Amino acid sequence: MPQLRKDPVVGRWVIISTDRAKRPTPREHKRNSPRNGPCPFCEGNEGLTPPEIMAYRAAGSSRESPGWTLRVVPNKFPALMIEGELDRRGEGVYDLMNGVGAHEVVVETPNHETNMGALSEKQYEEILWAYRDRILDLRKDKRFRYVLIFKNQGSEAGATMEHTHSQLIALPIVPRTVTDELVGAQEYYKYKERCIYCDIVRQEIEERARVVSENENFAVICPFASRFPFETWILPKRHSSYFEHASKQEYVDLSRSLRETLIRLNGSLNDPPFNYIVHSMPFEETEDGHYHWHIEVMPKLTQVAGFEWGTGFYINPVTPEEAALSLREIAL
Amino acid sequence: MPQLRKDPVVGRWVIISTDRAKRPTPREHKRNSPRNGPCPFCEGNEGLTPPEIMAYRAAGSSRESPGWTLRVVPNKFPALMIEGELDRRGEGVYDLMNGVGAHEVVVETPNHETNMGALSEKQYEEILWAYRDRILDLRKDKRFRYVLIFKNQGSEAGATMEHTHSQLIALPIVPRTVTDELVGAQEYYKYKERCIYCDIVRQEIEERARVVSENENFAVICPFASRFPFETWILPKRHSSYFEHASKQEYVDLSRSLRETLIRLNGSLNDPPFNYIVHSMPFEETEDGHYHWHIEVMPKLTQVAGFEWGTGFYINPVTPEEAALSLREIAL
Repeated sequence: MPQLRKDPVVGRWVIISTDRAKRPTPREHKRNSPRNGPCPFCEGNEGLTPPEIMAYRAAGSSRESPGWTLRVVPNKFPALMIEGELDRRGEGVYDLMNGVGAHEVVVETPNHETNMGALSEKQYEEILWAYRDRILDLRKDKRFRYVLIFKNQGSEAGATMEHTHSQLIALPIVPRTVTDELVGAQEYYKYKERCIYCDIVRQEIEERARVVSENENFAVICPFASRFPFETWILPKRHSSYFEHASKQEYVDLSRSLRETLIRLNGSLNDPPFNYIVHSMPFEETEDGHYHWHIEVMPKLTQVAGFEWGTGFYINPVTPEEAALSLREIAL
Repeated sequence: MPQLRKDPVVGRWVIISTDRAKRPTPREHKRNSPRNGPCPFCEGNEGLTPPEIMAYRAAGSSRESPGWTLRVVPNKFPALMIEGELDRRGEGVYDLMNGVGAHEVVVETPNHETNMGALSEKQYEEILWAYRDRILDLRKDKRFRYVLIFKNQGSEAGATMEHTHSQLIALPIVPRTVTDELVGAQEYYKYKERCIYCDIVRQEIEERARVVSENENFAVICPFASRFPFETWILPKRHSSYFEHASKQEYVDLSRSLRETLIRLNGSLNDPPFNYIVHSMPFEETEDGHYHWHIEVMPKLTQVAGFEWGTGFYINPVTPEEAALSLREIAL
């Protein structure tokens, strides 16, 4: 059973999960391409994954068989186990609990696409609806406090399978970075009685220098204090704390914004490896005036991860203004 | 001029330094080996670095010439500039200041060693004294609040030069991770009236499962909530907040602990790339009961840096107990 362990000084939780070491390493991931053996994420190979959690399917097609457009399955090498109680306990100065949680894979297309930029707007919409459906289902489980949704594209960004997919981890704890954002946004709200993210969107749209694109409902910007070259955030213009509370039209517009952003990054940076992460409010909080959900996209371009790992302090050789300019210039 | 920019939500400072993009990339770093051209860190090539800041030298040898055992020079591609005023200012919701600071390189040996593990105990002592001398000098400059001392070994850990060296960045701000440690340690102290790190050392030495080694003055442990496989911390047994306040005997014992730790890591993991970071108290604080300086060593083994970058949430496939066992078994 994996364990969740808490650093006693800074309160950071870590999953210690020895079974994960058995999964394919990025170096081996080419073996899953059709040339080298069957890809478990391709249509027709449904039997190679753990049993399907949900799928969007053509009428008449049946579970665990072809006919789907998007499919959610458990991660074959889960970082956390879905069964069991948390059993929170102490060991002297330390705190730990059982590694209970969900670890799922969203297979974004039945075809062996290796770049998410190749998917259609309709497919992006399905991906976002799938995130929402899974969050709404998982938040019924009272053991969980947060669902982390993220994508690793490219082995340098941590992907072990090349067939385009995203991941979801339901957690009995709130990740430290989310807590930091909540606390920071709360402090600003206390002082100004405004949402800091709303103020950011307003200022960026007025100044334009860091705006990549915008539509009716979303602004895409390279953030003022970007940690990484070409870091890009997608922020809803309407204030809302939860990703899963977006409207139908907002998901349509977000599909466009996300797809265009990835196409621009592919164009500016020649199909870079990247991660994106959905930042949303923890379940136990309620929709409020200060926290504002958003998506952070981080291309992984350089060996920036030297001392940055241990210090939370970043050196970025590309200004967000230059990055935004380059991204704006890409023809869609 | 580089800029220091602050994330308005979480308060994280980032250096935006476009000149850094011109430095050699890790892929090119082999060009600096003697086979492929002169290494600026080798004895005899003193003219290839910016002017020497300090050196430990044989009597009679002179500046910028052979005869040294350790040499400190400015980084040729500094992330921050030593000249100028901070000029703290706002731009709407954002805060920024000029990228003023020192960025220095500690060349640890005149010979072209590419692995720090090859150095003698005496050389480790000189390295630690050099860190101390530079901190004591830089803290006289009232613009600076923190000196970050770190080492990148191996291109995968961010090193661009193979000749073994460490780096030092003097900063007008305190890195967020240091602030987090200070706040966490203060909270524990308020509650228990004891230092959390002292309690950790006491518990680890009693339990032994995560102890790699110890001597009179230092304990080497794999931390309970290790973020990375084989993450290893070196903690002084005597409570002290500042690295630069250690005694002569403590530097001798730390040299042994650090050297042995790197030899053990080399033995267990076949000369892995790694980073280490010295964690010490910010200048403006005073020696106190709660903060406890230490060194964190982080081997860079796998593509763990997927979503971990953006969430501060880590999945570690190796337990610290297994890592400590493996490290203990290495013959020195």
